[in-house]
Amino acid sequence: MENLFTDEYFMRIAFNEAVTAFERDEIPVGAVIVCNNKIIAKAHNLTETLTDVTAHAEMQAITSAANYLGGKYLQDCTLYVTLEPCVMCGGALYWSQISKVVYGASDEKRGFKAKIGELHPKTEIISGIMENECSQLMKEFFLRKR
Amino acid sequence: MENLFTDEYFMRIAFNEAVTAFERDEIPVGAVIVCNNKIIAKAHNLTETLTDVTAHAEMQAITSAANYLGGKYLQDCTLYVTLEPCVMCGGALYWSQISKVVYGASDEKRGFKAKIGELHPKTEIISGIMENECSQLMKEFFLRKR
Repeated sequence: MENLFTDEYFMRIAFNEAVTAFERDEIPVGAVIVCNNKIIAKAHNLTETLTDVTAHAEMQAITSAANYLGGKYLQDCTLYVTLEPCVMCGGALYWSQISKVVYGASDEKRGFKAKIGELHPKTEIISGIMENECSQLMKEFFLRKR
Repeated sequence: MENLFTDEYFMRIAFNEAVTAFERDEIPVGAVIVCNNKIIAKAHNLTETLTDVTAHAEMQAITSAANYLGGKYLQDCTLYVTLEPCVMCGGALYWSQISKVVYGASDEKRGFKAKIGELHPKTEIISGIMENECSQLMKEFFLRKR
Protein backbone atom coordinates (compact mmCIF):
# COMPACT_ATOMS: atom_id res chain seq x y z
CA MET A 1 0.00 0.00 0.00
CA GLU A 2 1.26 3.42 -0.88
CA ASN A 3 2.15 5.73 1.98
CA LEU A 4 -0.29 8.62 2.08
CA PHE A 5 1.74 10.62 4.57
CA THR A 6 4.64 11.74 2.44
CA ASP A 7 6.69 14.91 2.90
CA GLU A 8 4.70 16.37 0.00
CA TYR A 9 1.44 15.62 1.78
CA PHE A 10 2.39 17.63 4.87
CA MET A 11 4.16 20.35 2.92
CA ARG A 12 0.93 20.91 1.01
CA ILE A 13 -0.79 21.68 4.31
CA ALA A 14 2.02 24.05 5.33
CA PHE A 15 1.64 25.66 1.90
CA ASN A 16 -2.07 26.20 2.50
CA GLU A 17 -1.12 28.01 5.72
CA ALA A 18 1.25 30.20 3.69
CA VAL A 19 -1.61 31.03 1.31
CA THR A 20 -3.69 32.10 4.32
CA ALA A 21 -0.83 34.40 5.38
CA PHE A 22 -0.71 35.81 1.84
CA GLU A 23 -4.41 36.58 1.94
CA ARG A 24 -3.89 38.42 5.24
CA ASP A 25 -1.11 40.52 3.76
CA GLU A 26 1.53 38.72 5.79
CA ILE A 27 4.80 37.44 4.29
CA PRO A 28 3.51 34.06 3.08
CA VAL A 29 5.22 31.43 5.21
CA GLY A 30 3.33 28.48 6.65
CA ALA A 31 4.34 25.66 8.97
CA VAL A 32 3.00 22.44 10.46
CA ILE A 33 4.49 20.11 13.05
CA VAL A 34 3.77 16.41 12.73
CA CYS A 35 4.16 13.65 15.30
CA ASN A 36 3.42 10.03 14.29
CA ASN A 37 1.71 11.22 11.11
CA LYS A 38 -0.59 13.47 13.13
CA ILE A 39 -0.54 17.24 12.75
CA ILE A 40 -0.10 18.68 16.23
CA ALA A 41 0.53 22.32 15.28
CA LYS A 42 -0.31 24.55 12.34
CA ALA A 43 0.66 28.20 11.95
CA HIS A 44 1.44 30.98 9.53
CA ASN A 45 3.44 34.15 9.79
CA LEU A 46 1.69 36.83 11.86
CA THR A 47 4.37 39.49 12.32
CA GLU A 48 2.20 42.30 10.93
CA THR A 49 -1.05 41.30 12.60
CA LEU A 50 0.61 40.92 15.99
CA THR A 51 3.21 43.69 15.37
CA ASP A 52 5.77 41.24 16.68
CA VAL A 53 8.97 40.26 14.86
CA THR A 54 9.02 36.97 16.78
CA ALA A 55 5.67 35.80 15.37
CA HIS A 56 7.14 33.67 12.58
CA ALA A 57 5.20 30.56 11.56
CA GLU A 58 7.86 28.24 12.99
CA MET A 59 7.99 29.99 16.40
CA GLN A 60 4.25 29.73 16.84
CA ALA A 61 4.26 26.11 15.70
CA ILE A 62 7.05 25.20 18.18
CA THR A 63 5.17 26.81 21.09
CA SER A 64 1.92 25.22 20.02
CA ALA A 65 3.41 21.72 19.58
CA ALA A 66 5.14 21.85 22.98
CA ASN A 67 1.86 22.94 24.50
CA TYR A 68 0.08 20.00 22.88
CA LEU A 69 2.73 17.50 23.98
CA GLY A 70 3.08 18.94 27.47
CA GLY A 71 6.87 18.95 27.12
CA LYS A 72 9.32 21.37 25.61
CA TYR A 73 11.33 18.92 23.49
CA LEU A 74 10.03 17.97 20.07
CA GLN A 75 11.73 14.62 19.67
CA ASP A 76 9.88 12.37 17.21
CA CYS A 77 8.42 15.47 15.57
CA THR A 78 8.87 16.89 12.08
CA LEU A 79 8.49 20.55 11.13
CA TYR A 80 7.28 21.30 7.62
CA VAL A 81 7.82 24.91 6.62
CA THR A 82 7.49 26.56 3.22
CA LEU A 83 10.64 28.71 3.59
CA GLU A 84 14.10 27.94 4.99
CA PRO A 85 13.97 29.00 8.66
CA CYS A 86 15.81 32.21 9.65
CA VAL A 87 18.49 32.43 12.35
CA MET A 88 15.89 33.08 15.10
CA CYS A 89 13.77 30.08 14.10
CA GLY A 90 16.91 27.98 13.56
CA GLY A 91 17.97 28.82 17.12
CA ALA A 92 14.52 27.88 18.46
CA LEU A 93 14.59 24.60 16.51
CA TYR A 94 18.00 23.90 18.02
CA TRP A 95 16.61 24.27 21.54
CA SER A 96 13.61 22.09 20.69
CA GLN A 97 15.82 19.16 19.59
CA ILE A 98 13.26 18.44 16.88
CA SER A 99 13.92 15.23 14.92
CA LYS A 100 13.38 16.48 11.38
CA VAL A 101 12.98 19.75 9.54
CA VAL A 102 11.61 19.81 5.99
CA TYR A 103 11.51 23.11 4.12
CA GLY A 104 10.36 24.22 0.69
CA ALA A 105 12.14 27.25 -0.75
CA SER A 106 15.66 28.26 0.21
CA ASP A 107 16.40 31.70 1.68
CA GLU A 108 19.99 32.48 0.82
CA LYS A 109 19.91 35.93 2.41
CA ARG A 110 18.16 35.36 5.72
CA GLY A 111 18.14 31.58 6.09
CA PHE A 112 19.93 29.73 8.90
CA LYS A 113 22.16 27.79 6.49
CA ALA A 114 24.38 30.70 5.52
CA LYS A 115 24.62 32.02 9.08
CA ILE A 116 24.66 29.07 11.45
CA GLY A 117 25.05 26.16 9.02
CA GLU A 118 23.25 23.50 11.00
CA LEU A 119 20.58 22.91 13.61
CA HIS A 120 20.79 20.39 16.46
CA PRO A 121 23.02 17.36 15.71
CA LYS A 122 19.90 15.21 16.27
CA THR A 123 17.95 17.05 13.56
CA GLU A 124 17.67 15.67 10.04
CA ILE A 125 17.22 18.41 7.42
CA ILE A 126 15.47 18.00 4.07
CA SER A 127 14.96 20.82 1.59
CA GLY A 128 13.34 21.52 -1.76
CA ILE A 129 9.91 19.93 -1.17
CA MET A 130 7.40 21.95 -3.26
CA GLU A 131 10.23 24.42 -3.75
CA ASN A 132 8.79 26.12 -6.85
CA GLU A 133 5.33 26.75 -5.42
CA CYS A 134 6.72 27.99 -2.11
CA SER A 135 9.18 30.39 -3.72
CA GLN A 136 6.64 31.50 -6.35
CA LEU A 137 4.22 32.52 -3.59
CA MET A 138 6.95 34.64 -1.95
CA LYS A 139 7.84 36.30 -5.26
CA GLU A 140 4.21 37.06 -5.96
CA PHE A 141 3.85 38.66 -2.53
CA PHE A 142 6.83 40.98 -2.93
CA LEU A 143 5.83 41.89 -6.49
CA ARG A 144 2.48 43.09 -5.17
CA LYS A 145 4.20 45.10 -2.46
CA ARG A 146 6.16 47.22 -4.92
CA MET B 1 24.29 66.47 37.95
CA GLU B 2 25.18 62.82 37.82
CA ASN B 3 23.20 60.63 35.46
CA LEU B 4 21.09 58.21 37.44
CA PHE B 5 20.15 56.13 34.44
CA THR B 6 23.40 54.35 33.73
CA ASP B 7 23.83 50.92 32.15
CA GLU B 8 24.48 49.60 35.67
CA TYR B 9 21.20 51.05 36.88
CA PHE B 10 19.13 49.15 34.30
CA MET B 11 21.26 46.02 34.48
CA ARG B 12 20.53 45.89 38.19
CA ILE B 13 16.83 45.68 37.37
CA ALA B 14 17.46 42.96 34.80
CA PHE B 15 19.51 41.16 37.46
CA ASN B 16 16.58 41.33 39.88
CA GLU B 17 14.47 39.64 37.20
CA ALA B 18 17.13 36.92 36.93
CA VAL B 19 16.93 36.41 40.70
CA THR B 20 13.17 35.96 40.37
CA ALA B 21 13.80 33.29 37.72
CA PHE B 22 16.30 31.61 40.05
CA GLU B 23 13.73 31.49 42.83
CA ARG B 24 11.27 29.87 40.43
CA ASP B 25 13.79 27.20 39.47
CA GLU B 26 14.26 28.67 36.01
CA ILE B 27 17.69 29.25 34.44
CA PRO B 28 18.38 32.70 35.94
CA VAL B 29 18.32 35.14 33.06
CA GLY B 30 16.52 38.49 33.27
CA ALA B 31 15.93 41.26 30.76
CA VAL B 32 14.51 44.77 30.54
CA ILE B 33 13.92 47.01 27.53
CA VAL B 34 14.34 50.73 28.00
CA CYS B 35 13.13 53.57 25.80
CA ASN B 36 14.04 57.18 26.73
CA ASN B 37 15.13 56.05 30.18
CA LYS B 38 11.77 54.40 30.76
CA ILE B 39 11.44 50.66 31.28
CA ILE B 40 8.85 49.45 28.78
CA ALA B 41 9.34 45.69 29.21
CA LYS B 42 10.64 43.42 31.95
CA ALA B 43 10.91 39.63 31.78
CA HIS B 44 12.73 36.57 32.99
CA ASN B 45 13.28 33.15 31.59
CA LEU B 46 10.14 30.97 31.74
CA THR B 47 11.05 27.93 29.65
CA GLU B 48 10.24 25.43 32.41
CA THR B 49 7.07 27.11 33.68
CA LEU B 50 5.66 27.46 30.16
CA THR B 51 7.31 24.26 28.85
CA ASP B 52 8.39 26.31 25.86
CA VAL B 53 11.96 26.58 24.58
CA THR B 54 11.14 29.96 23.02
CA ALA B 55 10.24 31.59 26.37
CA HIS B 56 13.65 33.19 26.93
CA ALA B 57 13.69 36.50 28.82
CA GLU B 58 14.72 38.44 25.68
CA MET B 59 11.97 36.96 23.50
CA GLN B 60 9.28 37.89 25.98
CA ALA B 61 10.77 41.36 26.42
CA ILE B 62 10.85 41.97 22.65
CA THR B 63 7.21 40.93 22.27
CA SER B 64 6.19 42.97 25.27
CA ALA B 65 8.08 46.12 24.18
CA ALA B 66 6.62 45.97 20.66
CA ASN B 67 3.20 45.58 22.20
CA TYR B 68 3.77 48.65 24.37
CA LEU B 69 5.08 50.72 21.46
CA GLY B 70 2.43 49.54 19.01
CA GLY B 71 5.11 48.84 16.40
CA LYS B 72 7.39 45.93 15.75
CA TYR B 73 10.70 47.80 15.45
CA LEU B 74 12.59 48.70 18.59
CA GLN B 75 14.54 51.66 17.31
CA ASP B 76 15.59 53.98 20.16
CA CYS B 77 15.36 51.07 22.57
CA THR B 78 18.03 49.31 24.62
CA LEU B 79 17.85 45.73 25.84
CA TYR B 80 19.60 44.91 29.11
CA VAL B 81 20.04 41.20 29.65
CA THR B 82 22.08 39.37 32.26
CA LEU B 83 23.47 36.75 29.84
CA GLU B 84 24.75 37.02 26.28
CA PRO B 85 21.75 36.27 24.03
CA CYS B 86 21.64 32.89 22.27
CA VAL B 87 21.28 32.42 18.50
CA MET B 88 17.46 32.45 18.69
CA CYS B 89 17.36 35.68 20.67
CA GLY B 90 20.15 37.17 18.54
CA GLY B 91 18.01 36.44 15.47
CA ALA B 92 14.96 38.06 17.08
CA LEU B 93 17.04 41.12 18.05
CA TYR B 94 18.21 41.34 14.46
CA TRP B 95 14.62 41.47 13.19
CA SER B 96 13.71 44.08 15.83
CA GLN B 97 16.45 46.50 14.67
CA ILE B 98 16.97 47.42 18.32
CA SER B 99 19.42 50.30 18.85
CA LYS B 100 21.51 48.89 21.66
CA VAL B 101 22.06 45.60 23.45
CA VAL B 102 23.83 45.49 26.82
CA TYR B 103 24.60 42.14 28.39
CA GLY B 104 26.25 40.99 31.59
CA ALA B 105 27.92 37.57 31.46
CA SER B 106 29.27 36.05 28.25
CA ASP B 107 28.07 32.66 27.02
CA GLU B 108 30.87 31.19 24.97
CA LYS B 109 29.03 27.95 24.26
CA ARG B 110 25.52 29.08 23.33
CA GLY B 111 25.91 32.83 22.81
CA PHE B 112 25.26 34.55 19.47
CA LYS B 113 28.83 35.86 19.23
CA ALA B 114 30.48 32.55 18.45
CA LYS B 115 27.73 31.49 16.03
CA ILE B 116 26.49 34.57 14.20
CA GLY B 117 29.07 37.16 15.29
CA GLU B 118 26.89 40.24 15.11
CA LEU B 119 23.32 41.49 15.34
CA HIS B 120 21.76 44.16 13.10
CA PRO B 121 24.28 46.70 11.70
CA LYS B 122 22.22 49.39 13.48
CA THR B 123 22.70 47.71 16.87
CA GLU B 124 25.39 48.83 19.30
CA ILE B 125 26.58 46.01 21.58
CA ILE B 126 28.04 46.45 25.06
CA SER B 127 29.09 43.56 27.29
CA GLY B 128 30.44 42.90 30.78
CA ILE B 129 28.08 45.11 32.82
CA MET B 130 27.69 43.40 36.24
CA GLU B 131 29.44 40.44 34.64
CA ASN B 132 30.54 38.79 37.90
CA GLU B 133 27.16 38.88 39.60
CA CYS B 134 25.35 37.68 36.47
CA SER B 135 27.72 34.78 35.88
CA GLN B 136 27.86 33.92 39.61
CA LEU B 137 24.07 33.55 39.68
CA MET B 138 24.21 31.13 36.72
CA LYS B 139 26.99 29.09 38.36
CA GLU B 140 25.06 28.91 41.62
CA PHE B 141 21.98 27.67 39.75
CA PHE B 142 23.79 24.87 37.95
CA LEU B 143 25.67 23.86 41.11
CA ARG B 144 22.35 23.35 42.88
CA LYS B 145 21.03 21.31 39.96
CA ARG B 146 23.78 18.69 40.29
